[in-house]
Formats: sequence, structure tokens, C-alpha cells
Amino acid sequence: LEAEDRDQLFELIEPLHPADVADLIEQINPAERRHFVELAGERIGGAILSELEEGLREEVIGLLGPEVLAEAVRDLDSDDVVDLLEDLEEEQRRAILGALDAPERLAVQKSLTYPEYSAGRLMQRELVMAPEHWTVGQAIDHMREREDLPSQFYHVFLVDPKMRPVGNVTLGRIMSSRRSVALKDLVEEVFRVFPATDSETDVAYAFNQYHLISAPVVDESERLVGMITIDDAMAVLDEEHEEDILRLGGVVEEASLSDTVLQAARGRATWLFVNLLTAIFASIVIDLFADTIDQMVALAVLMPIVASMGGNAGTQTMTVAVRSIATRDLTAQNALRVTGREAAVGGLNGVLFGLVMAGVAAVWFGVPMLAAVIAVAMILTQFAAALGGIGIPILLDRVGIDPALASGPFVTTVTDVVGFFTFLGLASLVLL
Amino acid sequence: LEAEDRDQLFELIEPLHPADVADLIEQINPAERRHFVELAGERIGGAILSELEEGLREEVIGLLGPEVLAEAVRDLDSDDVVDLLEDLEEEQRRAILGALDAPERLAVQKSLTYPEYSAGRLMQRELVMAPEHWTVGQAIDHMREREDLPSQFYHVFLVDPKMRPVGNVTLGRIMSSRRSVALKDLVEEVFRVFPATDSETDVAYAFNQYHLISAPVVDESERLVGMITIDDAMAVLDEEHEEDILRLGGVVEEASLSDTVLQAARGRATWLFVNLLTAIFASIVIDLFADTIDQMVALAVLMPIVASMGGNAGTQTMTVAVRSIATRDLTAQNALRVTGREAAVGGLNGVLFGLVMAGVAAVWFGVPMLAAVIAVAMILTQFAAALGGIGIPILLDRVGIDPALASGPFVTTVTDVVGFFTFLGLASLVLL
Repeated sequence: LEAEDRDQLFELIEPLHPADVADLIEQINPAERRHFVELAGERIGGAILSELEEGLREEVIGLLGPEVLAEAVRDLDSDDVVDLLEDLEEEQRRAILGALDAPERLAVQKSLTYPEYSAGRLMQRELVMAPEHWTVGQAIDHMREREDLPSQFYHVFLVDPKMRPVGNVTLGRIMSSRRSVALKDLVEEVFRVFPATDSETDVAYAFNQYHLISAPVVDESERLVGMITIDDAMAVLDEEHEEDILRLGGVVEEASLSDTVLQAARGRATWLFVNLLTAIFASIVIDLFADTIDQMVALAVLMPIVASMGGNAGTQTMTVAVRSIATRDLTAQNALRVTGREAAVGGLNGVLFGLVMAGVAAVWFGVPMLAAVIAVAMILTQFAAALGGIGIPILLDRVGIDPALASGPFVTTVTDVVGFFTFLGLASLVLL
Repeated sequence: LEAEDRDQLFELIEPLHPADVADLIEQINPAERRHFVELAGERIGGAILSELEEGLREEVIGLLGPEVLAEAVRDLDSDDVVDLLEDLEEEQRRAILGALDAPERLAVQKSLTYPEYSAGRLMQRELVMAPEHWTVGQAIDHMREREDLPSQFYHVFLVDPKMRPVGNVTLGRIMSSRRSVALKDLVEEVFRVFPATDSETDVAYAFNQYHLISAPVVDESERLVGMITIDDAMAVLDEEHEEDILRLGGVVEEASLSDTVLQAARGRATWLFVNLLTAIFASIVIDLFADTIDQMVALAVLMPIVASMGGNAGTQTMTVAVRSIATRDLTAQNALRVTGREAAVGGLNGVLFGLVMAGVAAVWFGVPMLAAVIAVAMILTQFAAALGGIGIPILLDRVGIDPALASGPFVTTVTDVVGFFTFLGLASLVLL
């Protein structure tokens, strides 16, 4: 396949969707990738570049000649161009901007002045608007005449004389109404306008919550400057989900399968280092009871069970809490009630598994008091795990730290320390 | 507020979006909820019911009178009715079906014959189609005449004489073309048809991958029977993300903040029980070396560090693997290469943290051989964690088990056992 046969390669990728070609480029190895890009060069259009994940995109753009690149970018909507430019070096950025027509270039540059991850970066300039007094017929005639309609659009935005959006009409409503009907009479009940400085997270949340398809974006003076469509919002949600999952799993940096070994190792090392510190801290707690363990080695055998059960219960509660904060189901209003519920859940499971484990310990080591100690230690640890699992994400969120990112190490520290301390502490009091 | 003042309540919820009213109902406590539903009853329309999470929906439907319910359901698109009916008792189901018009009822019943989580369940009956030979003008006239247009639609589907979909035209293209243009000449390049038996996961993946807005659904004989829109696909994606996150966090059952304590405790207990078994298994490994620990209690102090670092590295790799399988970035083609990369990452971080920990152990306990033992044990454990973290999800996926659900316990077992075994085993060989 990769054997220098250009025409055959073109034939192969021709029927594929740009997203599939991008996936293909992501999945082959770096040497094949370079080869592929060199061969297929001119056929790698803007759509394919947009679909590539960020790390690779830069690499592929570096391999493409400036003319190919300019050609590729010309067909894209302005939001996709902004997306491409964001992560590029100054030099590549200027080359691409130079290839655009003046109005498009201005729009892209304007977008780039908005902060990263804002509605202004997400929006596209291409949209359809109409004065609020127009009729269906006027709108249809206007659209038939315009050359530069967006590639996909779902609403016509009505604006007042100051260019402020006042309503939106779906194409379906327009299409199914007589030419003489006023657009004003067709506006949707649900209408949300986003300031360009809004965070893309808030925009995506609103799209999801209110089932929006497209929505207008306005500048400081409330004038219509762009449009956000549902596919942009979906991409943002997707990214955030991805980030949440990876962060909860302890992968801090953006990670993808095409990262090199060194990039990946570095992305994981931060969290492992934090974990090393908390693990050492837990070991210091164990060390306090070294004499106790010396006298009864069964304690060393059983103590990881107490800590591990606590850690898992804490992770469960934390996962539910982090999710509920992200979906905005956990709010200041119900935080106390939910905390109470989690504490009850933790206590209940603590009693259940504490009793089970007491039975196991009694049979295994034949020391009834040891069984009692592990039962009590597990109940206390599970209870602490529940409180930590819900309380830590809420606190982090209050002080503005992403709970998905930082909760894990704190929760594990709490459960490890409480687990080892209660178990070994009780043992040293009761058993020796 | 909840003080019996019906009119004031109506005034308060009137301007709210149904999704926000649903959130409100979810966040208040059960007694308030009952009260709210009793007071607001007739104002709880179908849209609000659709937005409620499943567990609560049944409760609220139970509180509503049959007439209110029938009224509420009548305005919904057929996919939302299906969604409502799916989780209801037979009796409630029959009451709602009885409230529908005959054609709507038939469509809903037909949908319910498709398997759960299939495209047939997800689709709505309401759509706009046109014979493939129609012009723009004919399509517009047809839409102006029809009474029962879907509440939201984005494409007109072209069908052949056998009612098989052959293409789709966006409303934007129709609107911007002259009346005499043939619809055939306006069809979109990207066109996907879903059999009603396709899984909703596959449908959602395709919507996300190919940026679809709406797509036709066909029955066994390839005839057009319904339409899936992007908001349905978004809801499915959202649910799957949610499920993945919760499952990775060890919360097996569907969980929501409005579950009772008992429901929540049961939802977590399954996984805690599995974890208890693996923790006991790990403790048995420790017990094998009880004599060794008895002779050198520092081993008991340090051993949790080896296991914990291994567990975390394994979780990191597993998280990346589970995500990549879900997004279909990790395939049979690149599995070997990715596994090799993960092993290298694990080895690299193993060497790094092994050396750091060797330094810490040497200073702490002043036994150089102990430092060497912990370094080697950590390298081996991190290496095993990487292999387990990537291998276990891939294997589970191959045999058809959701890797998000089952990988965690297996990976932790591997890292705990390897961690304790290498550390204590090496120590008993070298130190005593």
C-alpha cells in the first residue's frame, strides 16, 4: 500500500470521510505517517487537518508545503481556521493568515483576540441574519442571492437596527410558512445569546441543557458577531469528558495514543510523584506503630485491606461527587443533604464489610480481639472515606481548583492515613 | 415558597426552561418533591417529564393523574414518548398509549418492538421526506401544506419509489436555491443510513465522527421508518460518558444524587465486595512472607508504597486504554505498538521512582540493600502495571465485557500481588 503508488493511495482515500482519513493518519506509525503525508500531500484538505488531534496536526502542517496549506485552509469556516491557528508557531500562523481573503482574515484575527476557551474562539463568522421586520419571502430571496452562505446553518438570527440579536427562526419554520408571514411571528421560544467572553464550558453546558442547535454570539456592545453551532458544542463536551476521565484516572496532561514515550511518561509522572509523597506519608503513620507490628505480624498482613477498602469507597464517592459537580447537579443548596447521604452510605457499607472482614480475620488468625479491631477500623475508615470523597471535591471546587484533577491524591491520603492509624492504633491499645 | 401558593409557584416556573424545572425537581428533597408535583401537577408537561432522570420520572408519573399525563404526552415527538414508556410499569404504559392518536400510538408501539438501546428506539417517526425527482419548489410547497411537521428538523430525506432513502438535502441548501432546481442536485456528500437494529452506541459514534445533524433510519426491507437527530445522539454520548466515568470509579449501578441511601449503598457494595476479595488475596501473599516481616519490620512500613505506586500507574494506563477503546482509537492494528509504548513508559517511570524511593529508603532506614530491593521491586511492579493496565482492558474488550466496568479490580490485583511479591520476595532472598 505505502509502496510509492500515489494514484492507488488517492483512490483509497478518495471515498473516505475526512474524519476517517484523520484517524488513519493517527493510527499509523510516525515513519509511515511522514511517508503518507509526503505522498498524499495535496489531497490533505482543511477538513482532514481539522479532524486531526492537536499534537499531530502541528507535525502534519509542518510537512505540508505553504501553497498546499493555503489551499487547504481556504474552504474552512472561520471557526475551524481559528482552531487550526491556535496551536501553531507564529511563522506558520502568518503563512496561513496570508492565504486568506481580507474579510476572512480580519474575522479570524478578531476571534484570536478573545481569550482561549471562550465563546469568541468557538464561534464562526459565517451566519445568516435578517432585520427583525423582514418577512419569510424577503429572507428566502436574500438567501438565494447570497454567495457566501455558511456550509451548515439552522437558524436565521433576527437583529434590531443596532445589530443586536433579538430572536431566532428555524429554517424549518421559515420553509413551512407563507412568504408573507413576518419572521418575528416565527421566533423560537428558547433563545439564548452568548457574550464572546463566555467560557466555552458554559456554552457547551447550555447547548446540552437546552437542546440548542445554533446560537448567536455578541461582542461587548451586544452586537451580533458570530454563531456557535451544536457540533462545536459537542466537541467541547467531548473534550471535557475526556479530560475529566483522564484526570480522575491520574493522567494530568493531555494524553493521546500518538504521544511519544517521553511525553507520556512525563504526563503521568506528576501524579505519580504526588502519590509517592502521600504514600510515604502513610508509611510514616505505619512506622509510628512499628513496635506494635513487631509484636504481631498479622497486623501487617491485614492493614492493606483496611486502607484499600477505604481507598475504593473514597474513590466511588469522589467519582459521583466530581460528576455531579460537572453536570451541575450538586449545588450549594443540596451539598449538605448529599454529604449526609454519602456519610450514611459509607457507614452502612462500613458496617457490612467490617463484619465480613471480622469473620475472615477471626477464622484466619484465631484472635477474636483482632477481629473486633479490624471491624471498628473499617467502619471508621469507610465513614471517613465518604466524608473525604464528597467534602474534598466540594472544597476544591469552591476555591476554584478542578475537582477532577486534584481530588484523588487528597482522598487517598485521607483514607490511607485514617485506615492505618485507626487499625494499628486500636490494635496497640487493645491487643498489646 | 412551598407554602401552598399555587399561583405564585406557577409564576415562578413559567419562565423556566423545562430542563431547569426538571433539575429543580431533582434537587429538592423527596417530601418537597411530592408537594411540588401535587401543587404544580397540570403544569408538568411532557417536556419536563422527558428531562427528568429515569428514577425520578417514574415517581413523578405515579403522582400525576391519568388525564394530566395523557395531556402531557400528546405534544411530544414519538422518540420522547418511547423514552418515557420504556421504564414504566405495564399499567402506566397502557394509560399513556391510550391517550395517543392512533397513528402515533402505532408508531410508538412499533418502536418498542426494537431491542433496547437500538436505533429503532432512539428514532422519531416525525420527519420530512420527498420523492427523489422533486424540485425545490415542490418541496417547499409540500412543507407549507403539511400540518404535522416535526418540531425540529434539518434535512429533507429523498426516497426512491420503494421508500428507500437515497440522499438528504439540508434546509439551508433548499432555501438558498431557486424553485426549479432538482433536489437530487443538492444532496449532501456525507449521507449515512442506520438500520433500526443498529446499537445506539454505534449511531452516536457516527454522529460524533461525521458531524451528522440528522439521519434516516430504515427497517429490515431498507424502507425509511424514522429519523435520528443530533440531540438524541448527544444524549446517548452523554450517558455513555457518565457510565464510563462511574464504572471506572467503581460505581457499578446507575447512580444519581436522588438515589436513596440503600440504593446508593447497594450500587457501591458490588465493587467493594470484589475489591475485598482481591485485597484478601493480596494479604495472603503478604502472609507468605510473615516470617520475613517479623525479622525486619521496615518491610511492613515500605510495602504499601510499592503496591500503591503500582496501583496508580496501572490505573493511569488503564484509564488511557479504556478511553481509547471507547473512542475507537485503540484498534487491533495498533494494539501491539501501543502496548510496547506503555511498557516503555512504565519502565521509564519505574526506574525514575525506583531510584527516588531507593534514596528515601536508604536515608530512612540506613540499610543499602533495602534501598536496592525497593528500587528493583518498584521497577518490576510499574512494568507489570503498564502491561496489566493496557492488556486487561484489551482482553476484556475482545471477549465482550465492558472494559470500563471490569478492568479496575483485575489491574489492582495484578499490581498488588506483583508489588508485595517482588518486594517481600526479593527482601527474603537478599536481606535475610
